[in-house]
Amino acid sequence: MEILSDSQGMSRALEWASKGLFTTSPNPRVGCVIVKDNRIIGEGCTQPAGQAHAEVQAMNDAINRGFELRGATVYVTLEPCSHHGRTPPCADALIRAGVSRVVAALADPNPLVAGQGLARLAAAGIEVACGVLENEAREINIGFFSRMQRAKPWVRMKAAASLDGKTALHNGLSQWITSEQARNDGHWWRARACAILTGIGTVNEDDPQLNVREIDTPRQPRRIVVDSTLQISPDARILHGGGTWIAAARPNPEKEAQLRDRGAEIIMLPNAHGKVDLPALMLELGKRQINELHVEAGYKLNGSLIREGCVDELLLYLAPSLLGDAEGLFDLPALEALDGRLRLSFHEARQIGSDLRILARFI
Amino acid sequence: MEILSDSQGMSRALEWASKGLFTTSPNPRVGCVIVKDNRIIGEGCTQPAGQAHAEVQAMNDAINRGFELRGATVYVTLEPCSHHGRTPPCADALIRAGVSRVVAALADPNPLVAGQGLARLAAAGIEVACGVLENEAREINIGFFSRMQRAKPWVRMKAAASLDGKTALHNGLSQWITSEQARNDGHWWRARACAILTGIGTVNEDDPQLNVREIDTPRQPRRIVVDSTLQISPDARILHGGGTWIAAARPNPEKEAQLRDRGAEIIMLPNAHGKVDLPALMLELGKRQINELHVEAGYKLNGSLIREGCVDELLLYLAPSLLGDAEGLFDLPALEALDGRLRLSFHEARQIGSDLRILARFI
Repeated sequence: MEILSDSQGMSRALEWASKGLFTTSPNPRVGCVIVKDNRIIGEGCTQPAGQAHAEVQAMNDAINRGFELRGATVYVTLEPCSHHGRTPPCADALIRAGVSRVVAALADPNPLVAGQGLARLAAAGIEVACGVLENEAREINIGFFSRMQRAKPWVRMKAAASLDGKTALHNGLSQWITSEQARNDGHWWRARACAILTGIGTVNEDDPQLNVREIDTPRQPRRIVVDSTLQISPDARILHGGGTWIAAARPNPEKEAQLRDRGAEIIMLPNAHGKVDLPALMLELGKRQINELHVEAGYKLNGSLIREGCVDELLLYLAPSLLGDAEGLFDLPALEALDGRLRLSFHEARQIGSDLRILARFI
Repeated sequence: MEILSDSQGMSRALEWASKGLFTTSPNPRVGCVIVKDNRIIGEGCTQPAGQAHAEVQAMNDAINRGFELRGATVYVTLEPCSHHGRTPPCADALIRAGVSRVVAALADPNPLVAGQGLARLAAAGIEVACGVLENEAREINIGFFSRMQRAKPWVRMKAAASLDGKTALHNGLSQWITSEQARNDGHWWRARACAILTGIGTVNEDDPQLNVREIDTPRQPRRIVVDSTLQISPDARILHGGGTWIAAARPNPEKEAQLRDRGAEIIMLPNAHGKVDLPALMLELGKRQINELHVEAGYKLNGSLIREGCVDELLLYLAPSLLGDAEGLFDLPALEALDGRLRLSFHEARQIGSDLRILARFI
C-alpha cells in the first residue's frame, strides 16, 4: 500500500487506533503508521495500559522488518506523549530514532502533554504538523477527551424502542423488541466503554449480568449500579465476578459489608433529596478514569440522568413496530412551552438488521 | 451522454419519469429514452392526463431533432400501452416508427394493458425485454400499482414527532417541532399525492389549507376530510377553492347542501358504529382514481386508520429533541403480548435539515 498524502497516512493510522477500541482504557486509543518513500515501514497501536504506546509499537515493527527509521514520516492519531507515565515519553523515542517528520491528528488534551510533545519534537529539529483528520481522531477518543477536558466521562445512553417511542408493554413485557443484530451491536458499544451503568430498578426486574457476551473482548467493562438505598440483593448477577461499584446515598454498614464481601465497592454520594447525586457521580467516575460510560437503565434513571444534564449522547435502536399504549422512553416532566424541550443533534442513523440505530447528541 | 447498457438507458428514462411526479395523476409517471448508436436521440415523459404519453413525447423529440427512429432502441419505465384510452396506443406508434428494440422496466399492471403492449410489439417483430430496474420503476408508480392491483390507493401517513415519540405538549402546542426543511420536504410529498386526507379534529383545531405551498406545482392534490357527523364549518379553509371531498357517516341534508354550496362533495360511507367506514373509503378512493393518498391527521384518525389496516407506509419526521410527558403519535390500544405489535420494515432513513426522515412500511 502506497501512502501518497498525509490524509492517507492518517487514515491508516486511524484504522490502527480502532484496533485498541476494547483494550487501551483508560488510555486513549492511538494508532501510528511510519512511512518512508511512500511505503509503510512500520505500524501499530496502543497496547493495554502500562504497555507500549502506538509510536513505540510502530517503531519496533519497522525495526523488526529491517527498516531504518532515520528520515521517516510518522503519522500518529494523537500527539506523542512527553511525560513519564507508566512508559517513557514517546517524543523522546522518536527524536532518538531520527525521524524527520511527525504528523499528529490532534494535540493531546492531557494537561501533562498538551502541546509539549509536539514542541519537544520541533525543538529537536523534527518537522511537525497537526490537524489531519482531527474530527475522526477526536471521535475515537471521545471519552478520553471528555475526561481530560471536562473531568467526567462521555456518557452514552443506550435505549431501544418501537417506532412510536415505546419500550415495554404496561405489563412489563419488553424482551426482543429489537432484532438480534441490534442486540449484538449493543454489545459492541458495551465493549468499547470503560464502564456500564444501570439502576436498581433494572437490577431488581431483569437481574442482568451487564457484561459483554455477544462479541469477543479481552476486557470486561466495570459495572456500576445506582442504588440510593442499597436495595441490591447480594446474589444479584451484576455482582458476580466482583469489581462492581454501587453508587448509594444512605449508609447501611451491615449491607455495605455484605456487598463488599461480594467484591463490590460502595460510592456514597447523597444529594439533598436522599438520592445519589448523579452529576457528582459523573465527576467521581472521571477521577476514577472512566472515559466512556455506557448507560443501560430504565425509564426512571434514564429520565433522572437526562434531567440532571448527565447524558451526552443517545444510542437509540428503533424497531420497525408500533406498540401503541405502552411504556415510554424517559421519565421527563410535561412542558409548558416547546422552548423548554431538550435539544439534540443527529450524529448518525443507520440500519442494523431490521432496526434503525440512531446516535444523537445533546446540545 | 453515451448509453452503453440497458440499465444506463433505463436509469435515464427513470429520471424522465420523475419529471412527471406532480402532474401525470391519475396516469402513471413514465419516462422514455430512445437510443441509436449509443446516443440519445429522443427523450420525454408522460404529460398531464389526456395529453401525450412518454413514448410519443420521446419519438416527437427525436423527429424534431432530425433523427430517424428506424432501428432505434426504446427504454421505457412502464410497458407501452396497447389500448385506446384518451390517447391512441403507444405500442402501435412504436411499431409504425420502425424501432427495432423496446426495453421496459416492468409490465403495466393495468388490466387493459397487462403484457399485451409487449406482446403486440413482439408480434410485429420488435425485440422486446422487460425487467430492467424493475424495483425503481415500481416505486415511482407505487400508487398506480396499488390502485391497479388492490383497487385502492397507496396510503402514506405523514407524522412528525420528537425522538421520544411525542407530537405535541398536553396543552396542544405542537408547531415547529421539526425544521423548516422538513416541513418543505413534507410539501414535496403532498405534491406527488393524488389526494391529501385529514380528519375533522385537525380541521377544527388547526384550520389547515392542506394544499401545496412550499414548492412549485401546477396541480394541487384533492383534499379529503373524514368527518362522520359533518361538523365541519362551511368557512373552513380546507373548503376554499372547492373540490374538497367530505367522507361522512350520518346524513344531514341541510349541512350537506351548505357544503355543496362551497364546492364540496359528500361521500356517505357509514360503518356499523356510525363512523366513516375507512376500508370502504379506501376502495371508493381507488374507484375515484386516487393513486397515492397522503394522510396528515391527528392522534385519533391516525390510530383508526392504522388499526383498520388502511395505512401502507409511515413518513415519519423525527426531530432531535425530547418532549417528555406529552402527546403520543397514534391512538392504538395497549397490548397483552408483544406478538400483537404492528410490524413494519424500514424503507429509508435520511437526514432532512436537522431532522431525520424515516419511511417505514407495514408488513
